[in-house]
Amino acid sequence: MTDYTMSTTVDRPYDTTVTRVRELLADAGFGVLTEIDLRATLQAKLGVDIPSQVILGACRPPLAHQALQADPRVATLLPCNVVVTDEGDRTRVEVLDPEMMTSFSPDLAAVAGDARTRLSAVLSVLTDHQESTDATRT
Amino acid sequence: MTDYTMSTTVDRPYDTTVTRVRELLADAGFGVLTEIDLRATLQAKLGVDIPSQVILGACRPPLAHQALQADPRVATLLPCNVVVTDEGDRTRVEVLDPEMMTSFSPDLAAVAGDARTRLSAVLSVLTDHQESTDATRT
Repeated sequence: MTDYTMSTTVDRPYDTTVTRVRELLADAGFGVLTEIDLRATLQAKLGVDIPSQVILGACRPPLAHQALQADPRVATLLPCNVVVTDEGDRTRVEVLDPEMMTSFSPDLAAVAGDARTRLSAVLSVLTDHQESTDATRT
Repeated sequence: MTDYTMSTTVDRPYDTTVTRVRELLADAGFGVLTEIDLRATLQAKLGVDIPSQVILGACRPPLAHQALQADPRVATLLPCNVVVTDEGDRTRVEVLDPEMMTSFSPDLAAVAGDARTRLSAVLSVLTDHQESTDATRT
């Protein structure tokens, strides 16, 4: 298997982490355009029980526009999904690695690199336990 | 560039095609879980003007569940986006090719193949101009 995601696991409850991820995405200029409660969807449609899991579709409009100009097909890969999964005492946050797009479309290298830097920073802040103090908020 | 999408262009107006795509996805067992009006989003956020374009997030729950069991990271690639774009007299319909997932995760081959078959069939029906008669609806 090849890495096509970036992730971190934090020692915080699921609900708290979902809220924090939303805040950090907003700070990084990403709006959450879509939201899928995967647990509720699979429960309702199939009657199966999985841990709490949400897919947040994050979009930074200038990056999306730049990507569409470089390769219009990239719309099929937008928005950039951020998946938060309940792992009991811990919570996993996983993001589609924008770099994966460049394996299909080298023209996306610049915008994918920019998106990757921004989303990596969100994961780094989440991972840093000091980040819960106000001092690190901008 | 590598193909990572499947597409067709039809001789029908945008609005009619969006409606027809929704119907065909439903017939194929795909619910539309998310919807992004890309034109409205970029207009509102950046003031730029692009042709009408919508990203429909299509999900067939049994396939999603099967994919998550094969590789949990695949949540970052769900749902499968179907992009409808206004090209004036014609309308383009483009789908993320599920086969692209197998280049990252060979364990997804079976479910990606199934999804690809179903979505290819949707595009084929759209392309077939005879499909607008009621006779071909099930």
